[in-house]
Amino acid sequence: MTNKDARTPASTQKSSDGEQTASRGEAGKSIGWHKAYVEGSRSDLRVPVRQVHLTNGQSVTLYDTSGPYTDPLVDTDVRRGLSPLRENWIIARGDTEEYAGRPVRPEDDGIKHTSPRGGLRNLDAVFPGRPRQPRRGRDGQAVTQLAYARRGEITPEMEFVALRENVSPEIVREEIAAGRAVLPANVNHPEIEPMIIGKRFLVKVNANIGNSAVTSSIEEEVEKMTWATRWGADTVMDLSTGRNIHTTREWVLRNSPVPIGTVPLYQALEKVDGRAEELTWEIYKDTVIEQAEQGVDYMTVHAGVRLAYVPLTANRKTGIVSRGGSIMAAWCLAHHKESFLYENFEELCEILAAYDVTYSLGDGLRPGSIADANDEAQFAELRTLGELNRIARRFNVQTMIEGPGHVPMHKIKENIDLQQEICDEAPFYTLGPLTTDVAPAYDHITSGIGAAMIAWWGTAMLCYVTPKEHLGLPNRDDVKTGVITYKIAAHAADLAKGHPGAQEWDDALSDARFEFRWEDQFNLALDPDTAREFHDETLPAEPAKTAHFCSMCGPKFCSMKISQDIRREHGAGRSEIEEGMAQKSKEFAAGGNRVYLPIAD
Amino acid sequence: MTNKDARTPASTQKSSDGEQTASRGEAGKSIGWHKAYVEGSRSDLRVPVRQVHLTNGQSVTLYDTSGPYTDPLVDTDVRRGLSPLRENWIIARGDTEEYAGRPVRPEDDGIKHTSPRGGLRNLDAVFPGRPRQPRRGRDGQAVTQLAYARRGEITPEMEFVALRENVSPEIVREEIAAGRAVLPANVNHPEIEPMIIGKRFLVKVNANIGNSAVTSSIEEEVEKMTWATRWGADTVMDLSTGRNIHTTREWVLRNSPVPIGTVPLYQALEKVDGRAEELTWEIYKDTVIEQAEQGVDYMTVHAGVRLAYVPLTANRKTGIVSRGGSIMAAWCLAHHKESFLYENFEELCEILAAYDVTYSLGDGLRPGSIADANDEAQFAELRTLGELNRIARRFNVQTMIEGPGHVPMHKIKENIDLQQEICDEAPFYTLGPLTTDVAPAYDHITSGIGAAMIAWWGTAMLCYVTPKEHLGLPNRDDVKTGVITYKIAAHAADLAKGHPGAQEWDDALSDARFEFRWEDQFNLALDPDTAREFHDETLPAEPAKTAHFCSMCGPKFCSMKISQDIRREHGAGRSEIEEGMAQKSKEFAAGGNRVYLPIAD
Repeated sequence: MTNKDARTPASTQKSSDGEQTASRGEAGKSIGWHKAYVEGSRSDLRVPVRQVHLTNGQSVTLYDTSGPYTDPLVDTDVRRGLSPLRENWIIARGDTEEYAGRPVRPEDDGIKHTSPRGGLRNLDAVFPGRPRQPRRGRDGQAVTQLAYARRGEITPEMEFVALRENVSPEIVREEIAAGRAVLPANVNHPEIEPMIIGKRFLVKVNANIGNSAVTSSIEEEVEKMTWATRWGADTVMDLSTGRNIHTTREWVLRNSPVPIGTVPLYQALEKVDGRAEELTWEIYKDTVIEQAEQGVDYMTVHAGVRLAYVPLTANRKTGIVSRGGSIMAAWCLAHHKESFLYENFEELCEILAAYDVTYSLGDGLRPGSIADANDEAQFAELRTLGELNRIARRFNVQTMIEGPGHVPMHKIKENIDLQQEICDEAPFYTLGPLTTDVAPAYDHITSGIGAAMIAWWGTAMLCYVTPKEHLGLPNRDDVKTGVITYKIAAHAADLAKGHPGAQEWDDALSDARFEFRWEDQFNLALDPDTAREFHDETLPAEPAKTAHFCSMCGPKFCSMKISQDIRREHGAGRSEIEEGMAQKSKEFAAGGNRVYLPIAD
Repeated sequence: MTNKDARTPASTQKSSDGEQTASRGEAGKSIGWHKAYVEGSRSDLRVPVRQVHLTNGQSVTLYDTSGPYTDPLVDTDVRRGLSPLRENWIIARGDTEEYAGRPVRPEDDGIKHTSPRGGLRNLDAVFPGRPRQPRRGRDGQAVTQLAYARRGEITPEMEFVALRENVSPEIVREEIAAGRAVLPANVNHPEIEPMIIGKRFLVKVNANIGNSAVTSSIEEEVEKMTWATRWGADTVMDLSTGRNIHTTREWVLRNSPVPIGTVPLYQALEKVDGRAEELTWEIYKDTVIEQAEQGVDYMTVHAGVRLAYVPLTANRKTGIVSRGGSIMAAWCLAHHKESFLYENFEELCEILAAYDVTYSLGDGLRPGSIADANDEAQFAELRTLGELNRIARRFNVQTMIEGPGHVPMHKIKENIDLQQEICDEAPFYTLGPLTTDVAPAYDHITSGIGAAMIAWWGTAMLCYVTPKEHLGLPNRDDVKTGVITYKIAAHAADLAKGHPGAQEWDDALSDARFEFRWEDQFNLALDPDTAREFHDETLPAEPAKTAHFCSMCGPKFCSMKISQDIRREHGAGRSEIEEGMAQKSKEFAAGGNRVYLPIAD
């Protein structure tokens, strides 16, 4: 499953700079795109980019999340996993150590001797790549990017994201040190290409994958991950809840070029056969360590769902819609006790700090409907997340805060403003929000609207929503639609925030559009395949790709053509036209500049 | 092509109130939806609504644009046309007269004796319905809804929209009189069910249809119109540019329950064989009269593209992208003269007033790329539109103002604020705007984001954008996707504006969701068919529609189920649960309400 063909044009050829170049084989022209690398201060620091080659000889460099899979020079094999890009950086710091680790048990995969499902663990499914021991911080060592940033160190990871974002490494360090950005990078996930989540950087997109008790397989989940990153997912959350959770996660981690997030509570609940009241801190902690040793980069922890807040949800239209939130609420009520996550939060910080796992403090009481938006339950939890964020910071654990959910447009800004205030500007990571409840099957759109707006106002990462939200599990097409929709929202926000360089992409595409460079338009598009396919539906012939009109208006009515004709007829260069037009304009202005004289109404 | 089955469940039966009821035939339960009517002050004033019947015995009333086609009691036939609902209202006013009208000529359909295409007009295509003479205002009579509103008359049309919008007729009259709303209703289009466009009312959606030189047929266009209104289009613009323009329009008008808009310039250009410089005021005026006699309800007029503004576009990234704008710019430059539309605007007002055709003052210089947004060309034209709006008002012509285009999020609000200020709060009618240029094939989404925002801030009607924008002509699926996306944007804006009653729809759907009433969720959805299809993909069996979980999480992990279990275990009614929870909460509060004591940082 190397999938090199998905976005790669028909043939490849060696380019003069020693890199592979994708070409459409048209009269030897090297157009299309190729994977390139921006070199850093050391030979093992190479930041991948997508270089788009235009027919006018120019090229455009785009951010690339697709990993080594789109580099024809790299031989990938999902059974071997990706090469551990960061391993030497981690080892060189000398502050971590390998250790035996927690033994993997059958129940980690949901197979218990007491279970009627019985049987042994399916050994065929065990990840076959190189054997590895987990790694953790040595006693007394603070091994998180936050700790490094605070003491003034610019790590290779920070330099990597600085090159990726086209900013100075010092800005990256500052933002991490201040807690305004996170760089999720578990020491046990050396395969990732580092990325950063923070409001001063490009808005990021997370894609959820995960099997459930009803459907899906390991292979499908790994494939969904590579598929999602190919279209632009910056991180992937593995939300598996069925069997083979541990093994699926191992395959996903070993093959993922992006940070992987999880909700450990889901697996912990599997270990007690779905009975929330049987959950204990020990089982949860064991699960967190299990996942941290595998390399999970960030974990959603619903420690803000406190016993006292549960009654606040009783009059809601849709109660508690977060799975983690409802599990914790059920536990709290069953025991009439404070949440074990809240009570043991400091110990949890110590564990996460040892692996540099980033917190994603979950919003277990997020609204699940327009009616419940911005209510007391939601904001009570947010205040607790602010409190937990400060504790996490004491332990040097990187932290982001999760946000809603379902929120009508006029209530969105309050969410980001309150979160930034209460959580000391920690990165906000929101699900949408969905701006109406009435469009199941189109919730990528209801939420894409809210996502773009909240990202403009400061949300650092958007969790995608697919068309299947509320209805079923997303398939391959749904994952792609969800990612593309959210890349649109993220890029629209980058533009609105005035992110340096963001508009270059739009400008390049609009130039191509105005000049009828159809191939360039396709290659610059967020989804070249669909853009080309739609164009070809009405004008399939190859000459139509160089035609100076398209099927919408036909040759006579094309405004772009008329607009170009105006320029052509009135001079070749823009300045000439402008001069000519300005002259006419002056003549007109001299004549009074208006036809209708002011009228007394 | 009566299409009664598209959104109509399997069987129909006579209900006790004499109306047809759609039912899914499940054990005699009458669920699903049926077409109902709200009765006005007179027997011929019946406002159609979509009545959704829920499994819990409740029902929800939704705005309905689908016309008689979804009423099983009405026998429709596209060859006969719809019955002229407003005819008696128009005649009763006694201020209009029938007259012979302008003879229809072959060239009205793009067939000229000088044309190499030659041949006679295709008589088979002539609309076969009842022969009719056009109608216009008698000399000295002001026959527009604006004129009636200004002199304090509440017309049946105004009462109709008041019932439709659930507001008082006086509010409708006031808003029209003030020029803050338009009620497009040509006296020659008696078939329409009146609707209103204004910021105090529900946000409306327009769908464009129209053949071009490259593709499409008359039948397809009529079918696209009924298809678009079935999914919620409030008006339809026929932007045909190829052959059979006149005849296509006749079929569309006679079968349309919604107002029809056009851009007369497109047909005028056909009459001069696509040579912009050969356009004359006479040819244009003749075309406007031709279309007004047919019944076109609103016309886009690019009278704001003045000679002096053309040079302002010379340094743009994408020049002039409006077809009408580029045609007028070409004409102005070819003759080095002021626009004949601007120069003859007062005479045009007189013509439109005689039929109650509404102006849609076109933004011919709208930006076609992020780079060109909010530039001097765009705003210079907007100022002229403000001037023209005041002139139109003097002639009692209802007027709305068209808006962009491509605009990044942070520049959207300036558009609506300036438009409202400059154009005395005349209704704004915007195309999107698209919030980024980089996603051809997804421009329904790039623009849906901008559309929702600008509608929240006061835009009265949104012109849809389909996935084929920039790439090709929309097919049936694209039209549906475009309409649904824009209904989402419009409804999200209605919610954000706090439109009375808007949230009832969301609440009903969220109640159904929380209570696992799957059939009710589907029937309340903006697109019931796709919602049902997506659900059935993973859980197809009929029992799954009553299952208290779904395929996303499976039975063990369903948060809704857990949330409901919490309620069940802790008391049957909400108040009981609340009490029990509140008691626990008090106990907890008494214990200090926190686990972590304040920590000195």
